[in-house]
Amino acid sequence: MKISIKRQYFIEQLNHCLKAISPRTTLPILNGIKIDVSDDQMILTGSDSEISIEITIPAEIDNEEILEIEEPGSVVLTGRFFVDIIKKLSGDFVDLETTENFQTKITAGKSEFNLSGNDSNQYPLLPEVNDADSLVLSSAVLKTIINQTNFAVSLSETRPVLTGVNWNFNKDNISFTATDSHRLALRRLLDKTFNTEISNAIIPGKSLSELSKILTDSDEDVEINLSQNQVLFTYGNMRFISRLLEGNYPDTSRLFPENYETKVSVNNSEFYHAIDRVSLLAREGGNNVIRMTVENNNVELTSNSPEVGTVNEAVNASAIEGEGIKISFNSKYMMEALRAIQDEEVTIEFFGTMRPFTITPSESSEVVQLILPIRTY
Amino acid sequence: MKISIKRQYFIEQLNHCLKAISPRTTLPILNGIKIDVSDDQMILTGSDSEISIEITIPAEIDNEEILEIEEPGSVVLTGRFFVDIIKKLSGDFVDLETTENFQTKITAGKSEFNLSGNDSNQYPLLPEVNDADSLVLSSAVLKTIINQTNFAVSLSETRPVLTGVNWNFNKDNISFTATDSHRLALRRLLDKTFNTEISNAIIPGKSLSELSKILTDSDEDVEINLSQNQVLFTYGNMRFISRLLEGNYPDTSRLFPENYETKVSVNNSEFYHAIDRVSLLAREGGNNVIRMTVENNNVELTSNSPEVGTVNEAVNASAIEGEGIKISFNSKYMMEALRAIQDEEVTIEFFGTMRPFTITPSESSEVVQLILPIRTY
Repeated sequence: MKISIKRQYFIEQLNHCLKAISPRTTLPILNGIKIDVSDDQMILTGSDSEISIEITIPAEIDNEEILEIEEPGSVVLTGRFFVDIIKKLSGDFVDLETTENFQTKITAGKSEFNLSGNDSNQYPLLPEVNDADSLVLSSAVLKTIINQTNFAVSLSETRPVLTGVNWNFNKDNISFTATDSHRLALRRLLDKTFNTEISNAIIPGKSLSELSKILTDSDEDVEINLSQNQVLFTYGNMRFISRLLEGNYPDTSRLFPENYETKVSVNNSEFYHAIDRVSLLAREGGNNVIRMTVENNNVELTSNSPEVGTVNEAVNASAIEGEGIKISFNSKYMMEALRAIQDEEVTIEFFGTMRPFTITPSESSEVVQLILPIRTY
Repeated sequence: MKISIKRQYFIEQLNHCLKAISPRTTLPILNGIKIDVSDDQMILTGSDSEISIEITIPAEIDNEEILEIEEPGSVVLTGRFFVDIIKKLSGDFVDLETTENFQTKITAGKSEFNLSGNDSNQYPLLPEVNDADSLVLSSAVLKTIINQTNFAVSLSETRPVLTGVNWNFNKDNISFTATDSHRLALRRLLDKTFNTEISNAIIPGKSLSELSKILTDSDEDVEINLSQNQVLFTYGNMRFISRLLEGNYPDTSRLFPENYETKVSVNNSEFYHAIDRVSLLAREGGNNVIRMTVENNNVELTSNSPEVGTVNEAVNASAIEGEGIKISFNSKYMMEALRAIQDEEVTIEFFGTMRPFTITPSESSEVVQLILPIRTY
């Protein structure tokens, strides 16, 4: 292998690739990035066996030379360390040349590195994903869906399926659900369907979180393909593959109550900041419990802790319906739920002091956030 | 105590005050900020008993009202938590009112906090520092002096005096020395003297590091006063007091060799980046050792590690004098030394493979950085 490549572009692609590499891998070769050069392109691969990222670098982009190939070939080089070197070199282009025993010479300006590389034949093969049926979403929409649900996945391995987001392909919509059994985040794509043999897929939260770091807020297409235990996201020159979680996702539809007892509409940002202030004291007091009181057309947030003090926030509500209520909840869950709603006004519906309550955009049913209250007597 | 204060200005002053507060204090009241309101001003005090910061807030600045005093008084409120509250409140002004038992009501907009406060009489008195003789430096110069020396103080408590910077008041200059016994940083103020009874003062590195975060790059005066075991820096509306380290600082003057065997002049930034690249491999190889070779009018940096690989950097030298040399050193020490020199060109003088070498600006003797080489056979 002997090539010359535009350094800045190379760094960007290597940084994407690094997102799949975990320092805690059990297979040493997975600490490396696989570089595969054919006659007209280079393919970079990074993987931690859960997530794999494959990036194709062409010789030219928009008639600008990116990659000059003198001799095809392949090698595996230690990921983070190799990328650090490319970053710190000087000059527009960097040269790579592999000699015997996968020794790789990296040169740029007055610098010359010689690194021990590995045989790319020892690098595991990526899983195959059938790309016959595709679901296509824009990058911005997919990123938003991830941000609106992924925070609610469980961090505990006691019920592994709960560490993922459940993508459900229904007859007339697609729904995305995450829950850690204390709260639940639901997003619906009301105008989309996906006709596949598979009715649902549970995608690990960790994979979605890495994917969301790569996705931009653009309307560029992301093509999504599913097989029995893998999902493939194709985005620009990148293929992002994640394994799926096995097991049955719980039926969460029966969790959503009907016929509220109390309903309050508030400005999202104002309410968020009020919760944020009250939670300061709630946190200092050692728990995160906030009490919300709806009474005589007033909404109030309070928290108290015998040693620290008390706090009281009057909330501006744009509408209050139904009976009064006193209810306590975890402020962190409430703040994460509010952040996951982009709309200016949100509606909170209560179904009794001990039953879960919901937070939704006042004007849409695309997002539903559900939180279990805390018993405080 | 009952006052109203401009929130944004209050936050800035509280943030400065927080720099003196350590979460690991043994005296619980030192977790707090002391607020002292008299008829025409407020004084904020924070301390961890090593460092104390006292800030005076006047009623008006440039005819703009900052502080409205309805009733003088004083209270101690939990530092970080209190500052977080002031930050998250809304509105331009915030009201503080202390009632019985030092309960303090904080109100702004629709928010009301009630915090448990403490009696300010329980707050320790700050040390007195005689301010008869002052050394005056501009904020920018003092900040630079700290940055050029403080990184070299020892982090180990085996020889406590080495954890500080030694300020030496000589007959015709002032010198600032820090060493961890592997390398030494020396800065001289050639045009300054300070006629005090005290010939030197050892200021803790930790204090100087906090002070440097507060100092700006402006030419505003900092007044420095010394007593037997305290130093006071007066800067704008702030008094910054630190204890001094007790003990005798070693005589470092005999460490500086004369009559170099080899002398190399290089561009500071180019050399720094070359060291930075070579150190990548040196670090990955498990040590930080770089070898520098001066031979036949060439300067070369190398590092190798059997498992990782090798690296070779050719260095552009603007001048080479004397004999050839092969010498090894810690790359971190070299990079910190180069960063402490602001000049474009630096001169490195070697006195033999096993003797310390010096790095100085090519055109000045204000800064001398000294590094002990590493034996590598």
